[in-house]
Amino acid sequence: MKTEIITIGDEILIGQIVDTNSAWMAEQLNLIGIEVYQITSVHDDHEHILRALRDAESRADVVLITGGLGPTRDDITKNSLCAYFGSRLIFHQPTFDTLSSRFQKAGIPVNRLNRDQALVPGICKVIPNEKGTAPGMWFEKNGTIFVSMPGVPFEMTHMMEKEILPRLKATGKTRHILHLTLLTQGVPESILAERLQEWEDRLPASAKLAYLPSPTALRLRISISGNDSAEMESSLEKARESLLPLISDCFFGFDNDTMAGTIGKLLTETGATLAVAESCTGGNIAHLITLTPGSSAWFRGSVTAYANEIKTGLLNVSGETLENFGAVSAQTATEMVQGAKKAMKSDYALATTGIAGPDGGTPEKPVGTIWIAVAGPTKFICEKFVLSGDRLRFIQRASQTALHLLRKLIVQETSDHG
Amino acid sequence: MKTEIITIGDEILIGQIVDTNSAWMAEQLNLIGIEVYQITSVHDDHEHILRALRDAESRADVVLITGGLGPTRDDITKNSLCAYFGSRLIFHQPTFDTLSSRFQKAGIPVNRLNRDQALVPGICKVIPNEKGTAPGMWFEKNGTIFVSMPGVPFEMTHMMEKEILPRLKATGKTRHILHLTLLTQGVPESILAERLQEWEDRLPASAKLAYLPSPTALRLRISISGNDSAEMESSLEKARESLLPLISDCFFGFDNDTMAGTIGKLLTETGATLAVAESCTGGNIAHLITLTPGSSAWFRGSVTAYANEIKTGLLNVSGETLENFGAVSAQTATEMVQGAKKAMKSDYALATTGIAGPDGGTPEKPVGTIWIAVAGPTKFICEKFVLSGDRLRFIQRASQTALHLLRKLIVQETSDHG
Repeated sequence: MKTEIITIGDEILIGQIVDTNSAWMAEQLNLIGIEVYQITSVHDDHEHILRALRDAESRADVVLITGGLGPTRDDITKNSLCAYFGSRLIFHQPTFDTLSSRFQKAGIPVNRLNRDQALVPGICKVIPNEKGTAPGMWFEKNGTIFVSMPGVPFEMTHMMEKEILPRLKATGKTRHILHLTLLTQGVPESILAERLQEWEDRLPASAKLAYLPSPTALRLRISISGNDSAEMESSLEKARESLLPLISDCFFGFDNDTMAGTIGKLLTETGATLAVAESCTGGNIAHLITLTPGSSAWFRGSVTAYANEIKTGLLNVSGETLENFGAVSAQTATEMVQGAKKAMKSDYALATTGIAGPDGGTPEKPVGTIWIAVAGPTKFICEKFVLSGDRLRFIQRASQTALHLLRKLIVQETSDHG
Repeated sequence: MKTEIITIGDEILIGQIVDTNSAWMAEQLNLIGIEVYQITSVHDDHEHILRALRDAESRADVVLITGGLGPTRDDITKNSLCAYFGSRLIFHQPTFDTLSSRFQKAGIPVNRLNRDQALVPGICKVIPNEKGTAPGMWFEKNGTIFVSMPGVPFEMTHMMEKEILPRLKATGKTRHILHLTLLTQGVPESILAERLQEWEDRLPASAKLAYLPSPTALRLRISISGNDSAEMESSLEKARESLLPLISDCFFGFDNDTMAGTIGKLLTETGATLAVAESCTGGNIAHLITLTPGSSAWFRGSVTAYANEIKTGLLNVSGETLENFGAVSAQTATEMVQGAKKAMKSDYALATTGIAGPDGGTPEKPVGTIWIAVAGPTKFICEKFVLSGDRLRFIQRASQTALHLLRKLIVQETSDHG
């Protein structure tokens, strides 16, 4: 069942709003095995809307339309739909009754503009809008389904969940697709792709692998299509089991997991706590950790030691170390991690010290150089990285790299004790 | 100059990522008077890409394409471009040299897939990618310009700013528009809109005001269109001068200024320093500060005191205060800010303590409650706020609110002494 999405509204095409509706709809449709073939954003313009409808109809079985249903004069979708389906607007009493009783409750008088919202093309099936004033509209033409919905996200999502997705499922024409996303960190896409090529070649035709890079992870998505649920589940399980050993050095979670969340789970299992000492990452590691709900159970706190006096004063780094080896050195990172662990009485600690740029680099220690130290109850790692990117990207990469090193250390500590 | 945007990538059509690129591009294009007629998202599929290119060419003067340029086999944009323009891939040595020297610096070996990234259609003008490995490509065909860019947002935005927008301007076919953006914090959009209505009514026809909300600021953008540069500059200056007094309670900067950057400038002027103590904002304030290049000159450091023992141990908050008033209280915020100022020997300090949620709220102190304290050489403010939004939004809003309170305090201190 091939679907297209058409979003109508000048505000998208002048970049005033980001079209989050389409991604949400596409995700929901994919979850019930409906493929979204194309997303098209068009202006509040009669000819433009008609052309988009014609083009979509020529390719798709279902056309989902959002936007342009408001009460103001720039919203013209309903008139365009009338023209497209050779219908005309009629007054829909149930829609008006619902609308006026809702307005009455809120003590708002109903004006002509509101009354016009109860006008719908005579040919459509009206879909109630429980969260707003503009109803949804369902059309069928030569076997193609068209649905027009309001563009306000919470009105649209409610209508999709309550009315549209169940009706689409009821057609019996939805396909079944399974997805699993594996999150990796620390191995570049090109190297991973080379490593996984053979594995990918052996995948059955029903399975597909996609590489999805993001600032916080390189995500590998396996998709399985088919008709037999049990067979698909088993294909996905086989793919997962054969892929995991190939990415053990960089894998850290599934789907919506985060590195900090994964670390939180590992620490919670053993009742252990964490402290952080940051220099070049400037608080971002603490920020990523504390974005995780419930992190107060295992995260003690952090010190952002930007000035050297903070490194000596709060983290007990010795002035001699700073003088002899510099702030960006294995020695300083080591003393920072030890100082953080002691000052904040934690089981694990993590420390970063590096040069985020744009200034401060030297030939020996160029911008992007970072020393990361992690310490657990018995183990310790201190490693140097040279990361690229501007200041923001450096901070993001450095933070993820540091958290990943910590995750590895926790896994080592735990497996030794397990 | 009519433009269309084509975004290529299955990840958009399965809803795995929200297409933020298009909105950003549309906004930038509109700023230089280029209209975006349509945005189309298509699959990593050869025929689909070719059809989208044909359709866009039939309507537009400029076609901007993002995505599908990665090193892996699901990325096929370059081959489709070759087919579309009747060209074939050639090896582009300068691209390869840049790529390999960057990999060399990072200590990563260059493999075949990386080498393939230096292959480009022979017919194109290569646009360097300073932030990544896949170069941009510029084509011209029957008077239509096509530009293919990577889909990674920070690579695309950099390439657009540095190369594509200037080249489009150089065609001489863009309209002349002047913009000035004023950044505000702390006054809701509806209240500001009401306050500015009269001012807006008096604007000349060539001037326009837009409200652009974002998580870090409510931006007010003044746009002036016309043909006479001097006249436009003078209109903009008049609008700026008459607007500023109306927003003095919430204005903090222009265009790409950030709150932390503004604070940095104020502190640098007087040679003063800053320390931060965070509880509920969890390191995000330190992160926002240290995103600012050069912040090490005025930012001493911060303590993220998540556990109460860190508040007592590193910030010298008394156990009695925590017991009698709770961690989320004016008293704790006050002792935190005093402790931070003393422990980190700074002229100014900022402290936050609150409930980010989703758990931890009580009827007296619901989720979203935050106490913010700021202290300078002679002045001190401690204020309570109740902010809405999920955990991430709360942290973002709380951080901005806290920085804004600090900015006000610095301005007060400085004007008293000036």
